[in-house]
Amino acid sequence: MPANQSPQRIAIIDMGSNTARLVVINTVYGYSFRLEDEIREVVRLRQGISPAGLSEDAIARALFTLRLFKRFCSASRVDKIIATATSAVREAKNGAAFVDEVENTIGLSLRILSGKEEAFYGTLGALNEVPMVNGHVLDIGGGSAQLSLVENRQFKNGDAVPLGSLALTEKFIKHDPPTAKEISAIRAEIDARLDTLPSATAKSTELVALGGTVRNLAKMDAAAKNYPLNTLHGYTISRKTLDEQIELLRALPLNKRRKIRGLKADRADIIVAGALVAQSVMERLGADSFTVSVNGLREGLFLEGFWDHLAYPVIADIRRFSVLNMARVYHYQKNHVNHVRYLAGRAFEQLAPLHGYGDAERELLDAAAMLHDLGTIISYNDHHRHSQTLITNSGLPGFTPREIALIALLVRYHRKGQPSPLEFESLLREDDLDRLLRLSAILRLAEYLERGRNATVDDITIRWNDSTLYLTLIADEYPAVELWGTERGAVSLIETAFGRSVVLESTAAPTDIVVEKL
Amino acid sequence: MPANQSPQRIAIIDMGSNTARLVVINTVYGYSFRLEDEIREVVRLRQGISPAGLSEDAIARALFTLRLFKRFCSASRVDKIIATATSAVREAKNGAAFVDEVENTIGLSLRILSGKEEAFYGTLGALNEVPMVNGHVLDIGGGSAQLSLVENRQFKNGDAVPLGSLALTEKFIKHDPPTAKEISAIRAEIDARLDTLPSATAKSTELVALGGTVRNLAKMDAAAKNYPLNTLHGYTISRKTLDEQIELLRALPLNKRRKIRGLKADRADIIVAGALVAQSVMERLGADSFTVSVNGLREGLFLEGFWDHLAYPVIADIRRFSVLNMARVYHYQKNHVNHVRYLAGRAFEQLAPLHGYGDAERELLDAAAMLHDLGTIISYNDHHRHSQTLITNSGLPGFTPREIALIALLVRYHRKGQPSPLEFESLLREDDLDRLLRLSAILRLAEYLERGRNATVDDITIRWNDSTLYLTLIADEYPAVELWGTERGAVSLIETAFGRSVVLESTAAPTDIVVEKL
Repeated sequence: MPANQSPQRIAIIDMGSNTARLVVINTVYGYSFRLEDEIREVVRLRQGISPAGLSEDAIARALFTLRLFKRFCSASRVDKIIATATSAVREAKNGAAFVDEVENTIGLSLRILSGKEEAFYGTLGALNEVPMVNGHVLDIGGGSAQLSLVENRQFKNGDAVPLGSLALTEKFIKHDPPTAKEISAIRAEIDARLDTLPSATAKSTELVALGGTVRNLAKMDAAAKNYPLNTLHGYTISRKTLDEQIELLRALPLNKRRKIRGLKADRADIIVAGALVAQSVMERLGADSFTVSVNGLREGLFLEGFWDHLAYPVIADIRRFSVLNMARVYHYQKNHVNHVRYLAGRAFEQLAPLHGYGDAERELLDAAAMLHDLGTIISYNDHHRHSQTLITNSGLPGFTPREIALIALLVRYHRKGQPSPLEFESLLREDDLDRLLRLSAILRLAEYLERGRNATVDDITIRWNDSTLYLTLIADEYPAVELWGTERGAVSLIETAFGRSVVLESTAAPTDIVVEKL
Repeated sequence: MPANQSPQRIAIIDMGSNTARLVVINTVYGYSFRLEDEIREVVRLRQGISPAGLSEDAIARALFTLRLFKRFCSASRVDKIIATATSAVREAKNGAAFVDEVENTIGLSLRILSGKEEAFYGTLGALNEVPMVNGHVLDIGGGSAQLSLVENRQFKNGDAVPLGSLALTEKFIKHDPPTAKEISAIRAEIDARLDTLPSATAKSTELVALGGTVRNLAKMDAAAKNYPLNTLHGYTISRKTLDEQIELLRALPLNKRRKIRGLKADRADIIVAGALVAQSVMERLGADSFTVSVNGLREGLFLEGFWDHLAYPVIADIRRFSVLNMARVYHYQKNHVNHVRYLAGRAFEQLAPLHGYGDAERELLDAAAMLHDLGTIISYNDHHRHSQTLITNSGLPGFTPREIALIALLVRYHRKGQPSPLEFESLLREDDLDRLLRLSAILRLAEYLERGRNATVDDITIRWNDSTLYLTLIADEYPAVELWGTERGAVSLIETAFGRSVVLESTAAPTDIVVEKL
């Protein structure tokens, strides 16, 4: 952790049209962050909205909840509160009066986000999770939906349209299941509204989607496919899958929709309308699939401050940062880890003619080297398995599911056992088992070359002929612990992975102790 | 952590007759400890032992390994090394010369343990893991076995006899599988040796066993039964099970024994002899079963220092301490946790006429209250599940498997979900589902009464009639967050668990915010 900073607890309050949420994030700005607490309350702020504005009942419910959130923040000693309101308050005639009342009676400054700001912050959340460079971000909420155009990892333009899943459902769906006519009416409404959006004109090859509707569609799909990761980071849904989901959902009555695995029961009533928005946007942009962003508005609001010192509050290399953030959150041992990363990189480069891998594998290996020991936070015994568990539960923003699975497998096999795809086979390619075998062997080599955790081995030189691989360790003093550890723990896997017997030697001469081949 | 102490890294080196081990324990004396690193090397120090003593080759292998261990300790900055040698060195004519050579050439002081000391330290390890008051501790090693008598949680007497699994195998078994005659010869030898031990005369109702043979027998049994915990703490083996294991093992040739699930392949050759020692000791003491201690000699050597400031280095209440140690290792939030424990205890006591539970359940509830939030070290999302995982992987020394399962289930259900026995059904009694339901309801109540994590709710008063349970919170100021949290998160489970509708109220009057029933 940076020496001159201490962690802060930042609360983000998001008074949505349907749900109010409070998240507390523990952070050192610019260094790391993690979710620390979360509460939600279904306020239904837009229920009963009229030309006169928000209803008295809805306002009472909102005041109750915001007062509660404020008190929670005081009780649990939050350092800073960022509180916003979106479409319901923005569109209501009495929205400004409501904000004044919140300020005067609760002492909470509620910022009303404009449609453009709502689009911007959702995009900020998404760009800090997904490595998209150019494309679109679609945020489907309860009251409105936002579509934004992204150029060169920046928000170019975007705005909100009244296409929230709750708003559309209330306006158009009177039957259960909805009739063909109602579906058509929703589609026509979506088309008409999208016509007003400049961001909806450009074609897009890359689409990122977020919000409750999208997360639920992804969870439904994941449940149906027995998806082996417990995270939606990097999850993609194809147009074909979405079309099939819509066919299924629109045909079922509500009581049957409620029972679909992965779909929250309290969202089953409004999921069809939300899914239709995603479908129409894909159609219009010509997108074959979309990637889910777990981040959204709240994370965007937080990340604006987290990256305040950058020229633009989006991290350039999200993959690099998400690995680093995870390592920092779990208190990695930086010196040991950096030396393992260095040695793994040196071995990878020199062995390139034998494995033929490039930058993609180099990055996975480096991520695994960074994260290999995290599981010791759970226990030393089986810590390689615990490291795997941490990764498959937290995910790694910016990586694809296949890459997350490979990194999880590499940390699993950084010690002990014969690499195998385990439960992740469905995410891997046919040649990934070879990839796993060779990269595990390199990571295990690096780990055992740093067994004493004090950088005794400065470097490694690797050469080979058809039958033998010569590993020469460069060290100031004879690296007995590392030679011994590598012989016992790594050599057999290296021999399997590269089809050669291994000769291990050190430039520093042995003095009182000589490690011999097993 | 105590303000005036910082963590130390203690290395224990144990030069056994077959295996040399080094463990590194991170500790604050008297406060907490956890395993941080471990290496082992099969040295086979007693191989080739003769009247002249340890063989030259064996000495060379031992010097190599000890030098390596010493270097590992220096490299990884260990604060203190405790190094011991046992039966092979103790019995060899050149044992003292070997220790001198280790001291002079490696700078490592190797303490030769007498048979009595070896028995003492194994017993110290066991007594700090198992809540036995009076009984016997049997430690089956490679070269020797130790049998100790325990009175009032202290080592009374005990000594080593040359009944190690390796020593017996080498001396008596020439056939594969062993012949009936060989088995009889081993049994006769065991009987003759046990006759010489004063500790083997007293009958015992309680037997604790430890060492590699015992751990492997337990793992075999656990694998055969699909045991749902990933820890051997509290595991028991009945005489009947042991008899069946021996029948199975002695009938199979080595290549088939090697394939038995749970049995280490490199122990398959010597397991029969070790198991026979356990069987004869059970027979002689009249013990129906034994409890496994994962702790042994190394832990005993460490714990002598850890509890140096106690009158006798054995913790009086091992269950209490093991919960506390786990909470400390995972950095629990002491203030929040202690208030949850207090409120859970208050609710438990007042509800006693309804649930009828006593001290045993009170202890489980308190342990779960202590450990409920540990999983946040992994992530806030699903932290109740992560807390469960930590407990089922680490175990809780001093508790039975059933109790460990119940504590794991209680932390799992301290928030979210309808309590169910999950994968632990085989460890539970028929009425444990009721127990789980009621204790979960109480824990969840306490957790939500402390939702703001700042002790806003000082206390709770509970009264009831046949249809309604009245929960009155005592607080300085109106506990809005807690009332709201309890209504949303706990009331429904309490209603199910105690068959009454719940009325929740606060002694402090509402001011600007009123929480109503859902």
